Amino acid sequence: MSGRLSVVGLGPGDARYLTAEAVEALDAAHALYGYGPYLERVPERASQRRYASDNREERVRAAAALAHAAQGALVAVVSGGDPGVFAMAAAICEEIESGPESWRMLDVSIVPGITAMLAVAARIGAPLGHDFCALSLSDNLKPWHLIERRLDAAASAGFVIALYNPVSRARPWQFAAAIERLRRHLPPSTPVVFGRAVGRPDEQMDVVMLNAADATPADMATLVIVGSRETRVVDRPGRTPLVYTSRAVVEVSA
Amino acid sequence: MSGRLSVVGLGPGDARYLTAEAVEALDAAHALYGYGPYLERVPERASQRRYASDNREERVRAAAALAHAAQGALVAVVSGGDPGVFAMAAAICEEIESGPESWRMLDVSIVPGITAMLAVAARIGAPLGHDFCALSLSDNLKPWHLIERRLDAAASAGFVIALYNPVSRARPWQFAAAIERLRRHLPPSTPVVFGRAVGRPDEQMDVVMLNAADATPADMATLVIVGSRETRVVDRPGRTPLVYTSRAVVEVSA
Repeated sequence: MSGRLSVVGLGPGDARYLTAEAVEALDAAHALYGYGPYLERVPERASQRRYASDNREERVRAAAALAHAAQGALVAVVSGGDPGVFAMAAAICEEIESGPESWRMLDVSIVPGITAMLAVAARIGAPLGHDFCALSLSDNLKPWHLIERRLDAAASAGFVIALYNPVSRARPWQFAAAIERLRRHLPPSTPVVFGRAVGRPDEQMDVVMLNAADATPADMATLVIVGSRETRVVDRPGRTPLVYTSRAVVEVSA
Repeated sequence: MSGRLSVVGLGPGDARYLTAEAVEALDAAHALYGYGPYLERVPERASQRRYASDNREERVRAAAALAHAAQGALVAVVSGGDPGVFAMAAAICEEIESGPESWRMLDVSIVPGITAMLAVAARIGAPLGHDFCALSLSDNLKPWHLIERRLDAAASAGFVIALYNPVSRARPWQFAAAIERLRRHLPPSTPVVFGRAVGRPDEQMDVVMLNAADATPADMATLVIVGSRETRVVDRPGRTPLVYTSRAVVEVSA
């Protein structure tokens, strides 16, 4: 009997972001694995077993799901946003590489989802309308000086920057340090978008300038987009402003 | 009467990538605007008018859609992939900024979609599993030397690089020049993923090494992902290999 593993992107916290492919993969699964709050977003089915685990146990969860699928089950691992962006798909691939040979034979499919930066960008306009990068501020698995180097490289070359994992309880100072770093390269008036809990009832979007960004609250549910020299704010009477990055480039000094 | 404009991401070329929100926005529209091949993906409805235009007429299309919505209609502009990533949302924002005051009053919503790099990444594993950037190789609206500078910055700082618009009839040499540029920073064995027509019947995925990437065919329907030093290829007997980028970082020289 041949099992199957799918890694399913749920998008941000609302069912309207689910793709048809994700709904189908969730429907077909015998067993669901995932971080508790993500599993809670999936409607219960009597025929499905659920295995909730903590957010930090990615590799253990990946190995358990692979072992289950290798026994012949249809297993779905659920992931917030897109599983391929700072989420479960890389952990699954890592476990396949280091695990038993039989895991390499498994039918594995990754079902993409709307990642946070796309949802936040859509809510505010089109800040990712030109060249951009996505950078995790977590220094759990990479040294802080490398994060600084990437901030320098991205800002000085004119990329818009989406910051994932800006703040956590264990990482209280990194976000302010990153903003300070970016100020070396970008004008104080550069637009910065804070998207918190996008797609959830407590969603909040804020647009500030870079010189005030370190004083703006951010947490684990916040995605921050730092603009480039081409990013513009369009005020609208009675509506939130639009923030977009123009496709035509202002020349950057060498 | 107050009109409404939505800019709807269709994802790559298959209905399984559509989100529930996108289906709803398409259903509600009185009029659809878009590049012909994207409009053809949306099932016809007798009550809807369709306005197809050429791929290069983004600003004219945006202005026409805004003017139509300002007359009180529910208008949807369709976009391949995600409208916020090298697509229609920025053009709509540009037109709102430069257009009549009434356009700023319009109810505008951007409906995110699965952009090509997420779909290609999902098909091959998790090459975007760590810090990455998205860069358009089109030099229609930015000078080529700036593209080179961004390639240098991204590769030397260890970002995985998703290349949009690698080749077109009018830009025959840029892709090979970009690969040559990246070889200055990355080992010859760096994995490079070519995803062509992802989600369509003629989909093709190829994994090559950087030293052979400029000899690999690419066209307007191709999305290329160039790995970093952390990107690994996992061979699987009888299956396509998995390509993923590890979350743990190999130290980069300063």
